[in-house]
Amino acid sequence: MELHHVGIAVSDLEAAVRPYYALGYALEAQGIVESQGVSVYMLKSGHSRLELLAPIRPDSPIGKFLEKRGPGIHHLAFTTLDIQSELERLAREGTPLIDTAPRPGFGGHLVAFIHPKWSSGVLVELVEAEH
Amino acid sequence: MELHHVGIAVSDLEAAVRPYYALGYALEAQGIVESQGVSVYMLKSGHSRLELLAPIRPDSPIGKFLEKRGPGIHHLAFTTLDIQSELERLAREGTPLIDTAPRPGFGGHLVAFIHPKWSSGVLVELVEAEH
Repeated sequence: MELHHVGIAVSDLEAAVRPYYALGYALEAQGIVESQGVSVYMLKSGHSRLELLAPIRPDSPIGKFLEKRGPGIHHLAFTTLDIQSELERLAREGTPLIDTAPRPGFGGHLVAFIHPKWSSGVLVELVEAEH
Repeated sequence: MELHHVGIAVSDLEAAVRPYYALGYALEAQGIVESQGVSVYMLKSGHSRLELLAPIRPDSPIGKFLEKRGPGIHHLAFTTLDIQSELERLAREGTPLIDTAPRPGFGGHLVAFIHPKWSSGVLVELVEAEH
């Protein structure tokens, strides 16, 4: 697996995107994930992506994160070609999965999260994608 | 510019590296940056790198970060081919630079940090490197 994107929680997408444009990133996709209560700007430069996440409801996971911790890096997402097999392998190894089954995420990808206690406080997301 | 690495603050490198091995990362380099009081494992998978950082002194920047916030993502580093020019451009644009001149970082690269107030709470590092 390798990095698919870095997820960053922000309060205002239009303001938050400017420094990343200054670093050479461009908008790859944008949209809303209604089930997660989040509006997304996916930025890309070369092989790397940054996912800016702003809440559309204060009681959404990103809304609560912002209220508790303020804006900042929220998660790291890694690609896998077969998320179901990967989750089964990780479960067998005793990995503390938040999602034991994949669910739909941004851009039509299947995703699943792993508890940050597994990975030194880093919330890890798996994304079924080629790259 | 694109992502060079994600820096992650950890208390124990040997324990912290295991989940990232399970995700397919391999050790690319390791060493100590004495001036920063930090021991480093640089991990790589495909085009992406994760930099695990453990303090060798409690009063080092990473030691203080761990005491205040616990383990977790510490910074995002982006490549530039000419860090001096990049810093001058960013300074002209009013970017709040922590380092106005580059200094030596891990792996012999010149590095400089930008204040997280610029970038939605994300501590940004520039690294002079080809990729």
